[in-house]
Amino acid sequence: MNKFVLKGDIIFTSNRDNFETYEDSYLVVEKGKVVGIYSELEEQYRDYPLKDYTGKMIIPGFVDLHLHAPQYPNIGLGLDKELLPWLDTYTFPEESKYGDLEYAKKVYSKLIKDLWAVGTTRAVVFSSIHKESTKLLMDMFMDSGLGAYVGKVNMDRNTVPKLTESTERSILETEEIILEYKDKSNLVKPIITPRFVPTCSMELMKGLGDLAINYGVPVQSHLSENTSEVEWVQELHPEFLDYASVYNEYNLFGQTNTIMAHCIYNTDEEIKLMANNNVFAAHCPYSNFNLSSGIMPVRKFLDNKVPVGLGSDISGGNCLSIPKVMAAAVQASKMKWLETNRELAPLTSSEAFFLGTKGGGSFFGKVGSFEEGYEFDGLVIDDANLNIKKLPLEERIQKFIYAGDHRNIIIRYVKGVEIFEPK
Amino acid sequence: MNKFVLKGDIIFTSNRDNFETYEDSYLVVEKGKVVGIYSELEEQYRDYPLKDYTGKMIIPGFVDLHLHAPQYPNIGLGLDKELLPWLDTYTFPEESKYGDLEYAKKVYSKLIKDLWAVGTTRAVVFSSIHKESTKLLMDMFMDSGLGAYVGKVNMDRNTVPKLTESTERSILETEEIILEYKDKSNLVKPIITPRFVPTCSMELMKGLGDLAINYGVPVQSHLSENTSEVEWVQELHPEFLDYASVYNEYNLFGQTNTIMAHCIYNTDEEIKLMANNNVFAAHCPYSNFNLSSGIMPVRKFLDNKVPVGLGSDISGGNCLSIPKVMAAAVQASKMKWLETNRELAPLTSSEAFFLGTKGGGSFFGKVGSFEEGYEFDGLVIDDANLNIKKLPLEERIQKFIYAGDHRNIIIRYVKGVEIFEPK
Repeated sequence: MNKFVLKGDIIFTSNRDNFETYEDSYLVVEKGKVVGIYSELEEQYRDYPLKDYTGKMIIPGFVDLHLHAPQYPNIGLGLDKELLPWLDTYTFPEESKYGDLEYAKKVYSKLIKDLWAVGTTRAVVFSSIHKESTKLLMDMFMDSGLGAYVGKVNMDRNTVPKLTESTERSILETEEIILEYKDKSNLVKPIITPRFVPTCSMELMKGLGDLAINYGVPVQSHLSENTSEVEWVQELHPEFLDYASVYNEYNLFGQTNTIMAHCIYNTDEEIKLMANNNVFAAHCPYSNFNLSSGIMPVRKFLDNKVPVGLGSDISGGNCLSIPKVMAAAVQASKMKWLETNRELAPLTSSEAFFLGTKGGGSFFGKVGSFEEGYEFDGLVIDDANLNIKKLPLEERIQKFIYAGDHRNIIIRYVKGVEIFEPK
Repeated sequence: MNKFVLKGDIIFTSNRDNFETYEDSYLVVEKGKVVGIYSELEEQYRDYPLKDYTGKMIIPGFVDLHLHAPQYPNIGLGLDKELLPWLDTYTFPEESKYGDLEYAKKVYSKLIKDLWAVGTTRAVVFSSIHKESTKLLMDMFMDSGLGAYVGKVNMDRNTVPKLTESTERSILETEEIILEYKDKSNLVKPIITPRFVPTCSMELMKGLGDLAINYGVPVQSHLSENTSEVEWVQELHPEFLDYASVYNEYNLFGQTNTIMAHCIYNTDEEIKLMANNNVFAAHCPYSNFNLSSGIMPVRKFLDNKVPVGLGSDISGGNCLSIPKVMAAAVQASKMKWLETNRELAPLTSSEAFFLGTKGGGSFFGKVGSFEEGYEFDGLVIDDANLNIKKLPLEERIQKFIYAGDHRNIIIRYVKGVEIFEPK
């Protein structure tokens, strides 16, 4: 259906300072895009099919900027450890299994179903080093109708033997995926994915940066998640000013669209470099709690105009639901506020909502808002069970974030198409 | 049914250092109490009715040591504020409504249903100042089959006019409830509930302490949740050494069984006094995040042998589920560990589980464990949807805590009686 109208209580954030609310209004969609929001339906739209969700909330779909698909079986496991021992004990052994396509299919099928269930309409995903199961994951995302960037992980050093690639093969297989998938779908795309500096030789980084530039493909990686990791990078690369500079040197830091996950221990220079290069930070508060990593000073990034989105970071994170990650982001920011002697102001509810919708959505283009021309990714929320008394829309959305769950989500759209539960 | 046997994968914590696991074993219950756990069923128990939950987990019911029933409609609201303005803007206006018994019934009915759903088998609850709706809440808990201590709140100063009682009436109505309910049920009991020092005159505190001693009734209140609150108490009562000493002076600090919620900013002396007087601390990590209160140094309390349990603290807390509160307690403790330069070790999964079962359960007597003689409060957990691969029982329970939800709970027992969904 090319044109339609949704009726309901519409709420979104075009900027982070406040919610925009349109009670009992009409949202017009044409060719997958938002045309406008009207309190009364104009003549020209009256013959469009009307989907009447009176009394329910209509909100943008959620955007998850960082998660590891092959770690999904480990969700909730091993969280008595920090990053580096956790990688060795839990993550690498699990990621070694994805040469087995049947196993991959079983895991990825459950993951995609669950992403659909929690209302994530777009995701930026790490796969494993395995080419075939990475392609499988991309095909499965295409079948689902959800939007995704999916990256085959690259690692040619400092990991377990089963996950160590040769530099040449790592680059070649990445290129193969890019060539096969870059124009295959307008919703599912490849992304270049050096795991992080410690597991990538400089030759590999150079090869990947060249691919990024040559094919105009985006990049994702990790940055400054844990103090031991930051020290390790300094030991490995004393020739560089800092961690970010290693990526930057090889055209993996904003030369094409880039996401860096975590960014807890960035220096002020690294934050400025991110702002200048328009590098996205993926804030993953649950993961940062669970792996005892620390609390990202989100306020500093926002003040410095670094684009920020939210990530579930499965399985360092234990929760796939972006509204729950929004709540955790606010909670973490309040502890940061106390920790900094009340210098870095806590996130507000509208700021957290913005980060989990338009903030991360901007990585995909005009996504995550209901402004004119935005791709229509939307959710219909039946929040009747959450409200004992009648509340204003700004409070209903807070209740959904803090106390709702996926059962409140009754309809999902991606780019104007209704998406049903994946098989 | 007086005697029965449950079969399944049994897991609990008799101490906080590790999980005790009995795969595919038999748990024998007689007269509401645990008789023992057996890998093969002994002759004498073979004619007991057998409830076969092979492959499912059998765990103790959850204990919520601190929540405010009349704040349930506010769950998820107003969390952009700190404690004192939050009380004035959201909490006191809501609590003023409970003179209306019809409204109270509607709210309390939803709360009790939801407590049942999330597997809380025992709760320690603040009602409002209203005598009749407090009695209603106790009657409704009795009908449900869940265990609870319920306290009419006492306030005769520093609150809104609609919630300010006369000192005499506050004491008299508290005594009336005690007399009517102290022997009415063996699962639902009254508890004396001065809200906190700032809202209780010393005359009121004296009257309540006398009731506690005379009738042997337990006590609950709040202690050192927020720095402004602690300063306020110092200003109000410079004649006392510290906040805890005010309660202690009036026999409201362990002279009968006592719970103090939060305990974030306790001095070392206050922690020692709690240990000496066996005063329970109710740790409420979600609430402490949400109201920007801070992080309780749980490890210090455990090291000092203060009894500790967990509280959802609805509606400062936004989550009624105690397993989710367990996860939040571990997450908060990890941030405390970083904050204290790695001095106060983070909670482990088994420690968090202990706090949410036997830790809080001890306030009710022999509750929260499956040791011989313990009252059988149990849950049957179907965790099939959480496990892509077969896992050891210690890992299955972690996955349930971090990534499960109430839908995994399929059966609930309190004191040996199966409890069905409340009406």
